[in-house]
Amino acid sequence: MNTTIIKGNIISAPELGKLDVTEHGYLVAEDGIIRGVYETLPEQYRGQPVEDYGEELIVQSFADMHLHAPQYPMVGMGMDLPLIQWLNTYTFPTEAAFRDNDFARETYRKLAAELVANGTTRVCMFSSLHREATIILMEELEKAGVTGYVGKVNMDRNGGVNLEETTEESVEETLRWLEQCHFEHIKPILTPRFVPSCTDELMERLGRIAREQNLPIQSHLSENTGEIAWVSELHPECSQYWEAYAKYGMWNDRTVMAHCVWSDERERKALKDAGVLVAHCASSNENLTSGYAPVRVMLNEGVRVALGSDIAGGDKISMFDVTADTIRASKARCVMDNWKTPFLTVSEAWYLATSAGSRFFGEKPGFAPGNPLHAIVLRDDNLVSTTRLSPAQRLERAVYRRQEHAVHAVFSAGKKVYTA
Amino acid sequence: MNTTIIKGNIISAPELGKLDVTEHGYLVAEDGIIRGVYETLPEQYRGQPVEDYGEELIVQSFADMHLHAPQYPMVGMGMDLPLIQWLNTYTFPTEAAFRDNDFARETYRKLAAELVANGTTRVCMFSSLHREATIILMEELEKAGVTGYVGKVNMDRNGGVNLEETTEESVEETLRWLEQCHFEHIKPILTPRFVPSCTDELMERLGRIAREQNLPIQSHLSENTGEIAWVSELHPECSQYWEAYAKYGMWNDRTVMAHCVWSDERERKALKDAGVLVAHCASSNENLTSGYAPVRVMLNEGVRVALGSDIAGGDKISMFDVTADTIRASKARCVMDNWKTPFLTVSEAWYLATSAGSRFFGEKPGFAPGNPLHAIVLRDDNLVSTTRLSPAQRLERAVYRRQEHAVHAVFSAGKKVYTA
Repeated sequence: MNTTIIKGNIISAPELGKLDVTEHGYLVAEDGIIRGVYETLPEQYRGQPVEDYGEELIVQSFADMHLHAPQYPMVGMGMDLPLIQWLNTYTFPTEAAFRDNDFARETYRKLAAELVANGTTRVCMFSSLHREATIILMEELEKAGVTGYVGKVNMDRNGGVNLEETTEESVEETLRWLEQCHFEHIKPILTPRFVPSCTDELMERLGRIAREQNLPIQSHLSENTGEIAWVSELHPECSQYWEAYAKYGMWNDRTVMAHCVWSDERERKALKDAGVLVAHCASSNENLTSGYAPVRVMLNEGVRVALGSDIAGGDKISMFDVTADTIRASKARCVMDNWKTPFLTVSEAWYLATSAGSRFFGEKPGFAPGNPLHAIVLRDDNLVSTTRLSPAQRLERAVYRRQEHAVHAVFSAGKKVYTA
Repeated sequence: MNTTIIKGNIISAPELGKLDVTEHGYLVAEDGIIRGVYETLPEQYRGQPVEDYGEELIVQSFADMHLHAPQYPMVGMGMDLPLIQWLNTYTFPTEAAFRDNDFARETYRKLAAELVANGTTRVCMFSSLHREATIILMEELEKAGVTGYVGKVNMDRNGGVNLEETTEESVEETLRWLEQCHFEHIKPILTPRFVPSCTDELMERLGRIAREQNLPIQSHLSENTGEIAWVSELHPECSQYWEAYAKYGMWNDRTVMAHCVWSDERERKALKDAGVLVAHCASSNENLTSGYAPVRVMLNEGVRVALGSDIAGGDKISMFDVTADTIRASKARCVMDNWKTPFLTVSEAWYLATSAGSRFFGEKPGFAPGNPLHAIVLRDDNLVSTTRLSPAQRLERAVYRRQEHAVHAVFSAGKKVYTA
């Protein structure tokens, strides 16, 4: 039995808006699986080595539930353009570069390192349509210690000359890719890019693969009003966008739909009834002027919501920053609703950035026994303050402001994968 | 004659929305004053040493036109509270700590270093009400290479037990402070905190000091609807908030008013007619749910606008980040106006963050001959990209994303004050 004991001020998010704090506590894992959080070390662990982080914070690491790996080279670019122009001018040409395996290897290694260094240890990630680059991405994530789902993108229309497959290629390459996926911590997820990128035939065949191989699914939904109008032209038989996924069997509790900015009451009910997870991407929605998702309403209605950086519609790789953007976007929503919709508090947004996402990977909220150990050790001793701050106040501050190399150590699936 | 020649990809903002780019150009200063930007080095400078930064960008450094130095210890805290509660719970107790000169020295030294390391070389800054701490702040800024204006805050009401002066103390301490201000690059600015903090008598006496000593003035205006209602109760004789400054002679082209979120057409006309500079503080307005200032409308109407970090209502010390927040806030405004108000482009926001602020210090826009040399050398060679980016694209990316230690060197008032 391999025992890990880390000591510090332990904070976890057991439910929306709640933080559990154990000052100078012990977080214990055996063979990478959390056994408990303790104020004093239980008898059976006495004498085992303890990694003592003193006054530092030990918090859950992040689950980034929506991001595009091949857009990493264009983070922060083209933000003055609206979604569809931005896709055609920046995104599709950038993704097309991943036909080059060497470039993919080098780029994805940097991305994986940057994710881990920022405390993101679980992802639900889009690759490009390239099968080989997708396998390279999965290898690099696995090596760096990132866990979760990665999808080879399917797109057999509207991608432009350098970024399109035929329907047949798309299906065959997907099947070959699925055969090649033998990773411990990185698993495949079916990834039709979004409705405008996939013909009906492709959607149907992907839906069948999902059923036959019991695979989760990720895509985009109701990000932007122009996109919604386009989908409605493409699928006049569907009264709402989501139905173009549901009709092909891509609408269940293993589905992640990014954005849902414009999901109205009926679409939200469909999300809730099916148990679909909404990956809310505040930074991206703000950058691309997509709108402000009704997150508070979704939470009140029982829709599952977690957070995504949406690199590169989003410009923030650090989920600390994405959490802050999530709060700010909810404040914009509050102002737009004439101060009638309460904004997300720091502890609520923190829950969405951690526990809400990790649930998609089968975990219980917080540092619950039975969860794999995913944690960030965070230091802030170099920041000035006039009074002694509580651990919860220090976490709040960390969402907005961190010293250089604030992330001191990161644990993923039981292993220490990063030390500053 | 002391000649400085720096070489690189030089970008400046000569007017709103325009960038001047000189690839592999020379920026020349003599005795700290810019002589010109040249594609080839003029004859008279041949043989002089050139600091060659290769492919790096050379851009104007930032003017942060509104921030509170004594709120530096609480950056990122209490953001879930509305303005007045946030002031009473966090701000006033934190500012009260600056009665301790040693704490002030240590804290302000860190602040000054962080400003310079982030390329902020000109400020228009609030201190606390403490005269001695204000002098310490000015000393530390001057030593670090920050230039601009600092004000001892005046507040003789509504500050709470630990943060209030009598009217007499406020005036006397202000006069003593003004006598002590003998700095080369840091000058005094009169700083009535805001109308609710200053009795009519204090305002009148400060207005007189401003006239007698020919001083600029900074304060807050129309940040929040609750605050506006309060001012209207305190000054029933004024039909609008700004008139409570104007009636005491504090409304002219050497006045900076922070926020102006809720300034309507009449108040905006008063701003424009008097030539008052609006310090727009997007990060703060979003954090404190104050609202979204009508910046586009102000610019169209000819109101002068520059940017402020508003530490600690704002959480971003880097003005790169403040610039990105400014764009995002303008996008929120665009969405609120049903996509009818165009958002600020990167080059527009960049102008506001640099040239628009530096004008308050008597400079011409961009790297104009006659301006003191204020510049940032910026590197991005560690960021991945699929194509060769133009300098303007690289600047755009830098607003959103920068590598570690991206700020390579900073020049302020002709001197190199920082190297990474």
